[in-house]
Amino acid sequence: MPEPSALSLSGERFNALYHITSPAAEVEARARDICVEQTVEFPEALITSAAIRDQIIGRLESVEEIGPERFAARISYPIEAAGRELTQLLNVLFGNISIKPRVRLVRFDLPNTLSQVYKGPRFGQAGLRDLLGVHDRPLLCTAIKPMGLSPTELAELAYQLALGGIDLIKDDHGLTDQSFCPFDERIQRCAEAVARANAETDKRCLYLPNVSAPAGEIDARARLAKDAGAGGYLFCPGLCGLDAMRRLADDDSLGLPILSHPAFQGSYCLDADSGIAHAVLYGQLNRLGGADATIFPNWGGRFSYTKAECLDLVDGATRDMGGISPILPVPAGGMRLERVSEMVDFYGRDVILLIGGDLHAQGVDLVESCRRFERLARQSSAATGGMRSMK
Amino acid sequence: MPEPSALSLSGERFNALYHITSPAAEVEARARDICVEQTVEFPEALITSAAIRDQIIGRLESVEEIGPERFAARISYPIEAAGRELTQLLNVLFGNISIKPRVRLVRFDLPNTLSQVYKGPRFGQAGLRDLLGVHDRPLLCTAIKPMGLSPTELAELAYQLALGGIDLIKDDHGLTDQSFCPFDERIQRCAEAVARANAETDKRCLYLPNVSAPAGEIDARARLAKDAGAGGYLFCPGLCGLDAMRRLADDDSLGLPILSHPAFQGSYCLDADSGIAHAVLYGQLNRLGGADATIFPNWGGRFSYTKAECLDLVDGATRDMGGISPILPVPAGGMRLERVSEMVDFYGRDVILLIGGDLHAQGVDLVESCRRFERLARQSSAATGGMRSMK
Repeated sequence: MPEPSALSLSGERFNALYHITSPAAEVEARARDICVEQTVEFPEALITSAAIRDQIIGRLESVEEIGPERFAARISYPIEAAGRELTQLLNVLFGNISIKPRVRLVRFDLPNTLSQVYKGPRFGQAGLRDLLGVHDRPLLCTAIKPMGLSPTELAELAYQLALGGIDLIKDDHGLTDQSFCPFDERIQRCAEAVARANAETDKRCLYLPNVSAPAGEIDARARLAKDAGAGGYLFCPGLCGLDAMRRLADDDSLGLPILSHPAFQGSYCLDADSGIAHAVLYGQLNRLGGADATIFPNWGGRFSYTKAECLDLVDGATRDMGGISPILPVPAGGMRLERVSEMVDFYGRDVILLIGGDLHAQGVDLVESCRRFERLARQSSAATGGMRSMK
Repeated sequence: MPEPSALSLSGERFNALYHITSPAAEVEARARDICVEQTVEFPEALITSAAIRDQIIGRLESVEEIGPERFAARISYPIEAAGRELTQLLNVLFGNISIKPRVRLVRFDLPNTLSQVYKGPRFGQAGLRDLLGVHDRPLLCTAIKPMGLSPTELAELAYQLALGGIDLIKDDHGLTDQSFCPFDERIQRCAEAVARANAETDKRCLYLPNVSAPAGEIDARARLAKDAGAGGYLFCPGLCGLDAMRRLADDDSLGLPILSHPAFQGSYCLDADSGIAHAVLYGQLNRLGGADATIFPNWGGRFSYTKAECLDLVDGATRDMGGISPILPVPAGGMRLERVSEMVDFYGRDVILLIGGDLHAQGVDLVESCRRFERLARQSSAATGGMRSMK
């Protein structure tokens, strides 16, 4: 291997925290393997260069036992390895080691020089509340669905939902640009319907079409949506790429709030010993990717996240990340009106409550179901006083 | 829910095969849950429309017991649900259920009307061999690394590797556009170095720079690379999005072979009961995404895939998929020259052998290491006669 002639990095590093499941005798070797795999990816014995060893290779900063055969290893990487690219930051944090079992990325911390590369959420918690003019209760969200309805039929639903007082009406994430429900027609009709309802209610309900689209078509759909009067975007970073969301968020000409949807991302979180922790996947990464709110399956719904995992997610969505704004958690996945009080008690006031099918299950009067949703959220919020109970 | 006024689909459907781990008494409910979750995502009892029930919702075609508490469920979806978008095809196949444990997507089959939407690999197995003019032995691949070397130093490595007879020289996937190794300078120097070696050897070694890049910058880097004389592209769909690769592959003005790298994708495969099977993730999806070859960690290397998983992957990379060409498997991850014969015996002649660090471990003469690599591949290939032994 040639000796690098003039490698001179800043010395600034960022940190990743991994949980490693391993016998105690092997954990240091496992951690050092991550240091090499995520940077030089080269037999360490063959790296003769002191500059590469000292400056490039991940550095094992600490290893702490946190349970039986379970360790927390903090590894630092040079900020230059991640450069100015979110794709490459992902790569350094978890590229190759995604293929290795029993290593889990549980958090990361960027120095300001690196976090400043990213604009983060354009609105975040505070900005989204300001936009809606709602500060004293959880925000209310629902989806127009099911797939199979025409744009006109979905628009009629959107009208009723907006009339009933929903704050954020998103497309179902399965609605894209199908022949039976073309994107263009759907967003025109739904945006118009929500505007009509807003004129009646004097509220600011936002319609968020799904702009998850083929590479190269996302901008055009977002522009079409904004021009039609959409108030935000639904986006699936798992389907389109996290950096595609970052690009959408960064575009000043398209600047609307983004709701991130977890489709195709679940596999990263399923095994508690491997993959990526909820705080990172749905929290920190969504923030770097410019989402203003993060949809995830709440505990006790159709999916299987635990209370602890949901709180971990909220931590990742809200903890200090330099200049990167905190975002709103959106617990979802088969939530019901009867659980509103419990959810507000659990998450506090700074949450978006997303209820879909259950609004329809309450009876024929969809508008009245929405009003009941709003009353329940307001009452629960008053009762908890806006404090999240960490239980 | 409104009754859809005029839903009239073609009736053509595509199939997904899921493995479900479940007590026998629950498997049908689990499978029907997938049918709903992946389409209407709405309480089934509330769907009064016969049109949506019959045409939109996933249809459980068969359930077969394949082991203790393990079942194979075949589910069909209307082709219109996936539309003409790879992002949405991913969503229907495995969007929301990625979040559910004990469901694994193990294969899918598209009717011609749907597979024709995708161009697939531009070169595939046959096209890549034609381009290189090598038909009688496995193709030889290596990477220039480690991170930390300058463009000049990497170019010197590339020159020697090309001189030694390597067919495909790729950037290490950790090389993007870092300050210590800018993309522009690297690709200019490396492409020039490989061209210089080709002039000496009269061979057609290809240099494949890593064009995994932020959204919106991939095209520009690929164009820069092609203009500089690069012979192909390395791309990480896990970092940039599978559809971003599809777009790169589809662009006639950028038409060079694509080597797909598995960074950030491993979590989908780790748990044998959940996620996505190797055949689908590294095989079928890479083909729809336009890759011409698929890098994966070979059994017995630094990673932990089994022989059976590797063969499953090869099956997904090569099985009939309508007009979508078969692609070359690229077993990698700490492979050594001493394993060449074993790999050729296992994979047959239609394989790309990727050896990185071990070429450097053989001694100071890198050119001679490469020549030994070529001899070993040729001898092993002659011995097996090009037939893959399925063991």
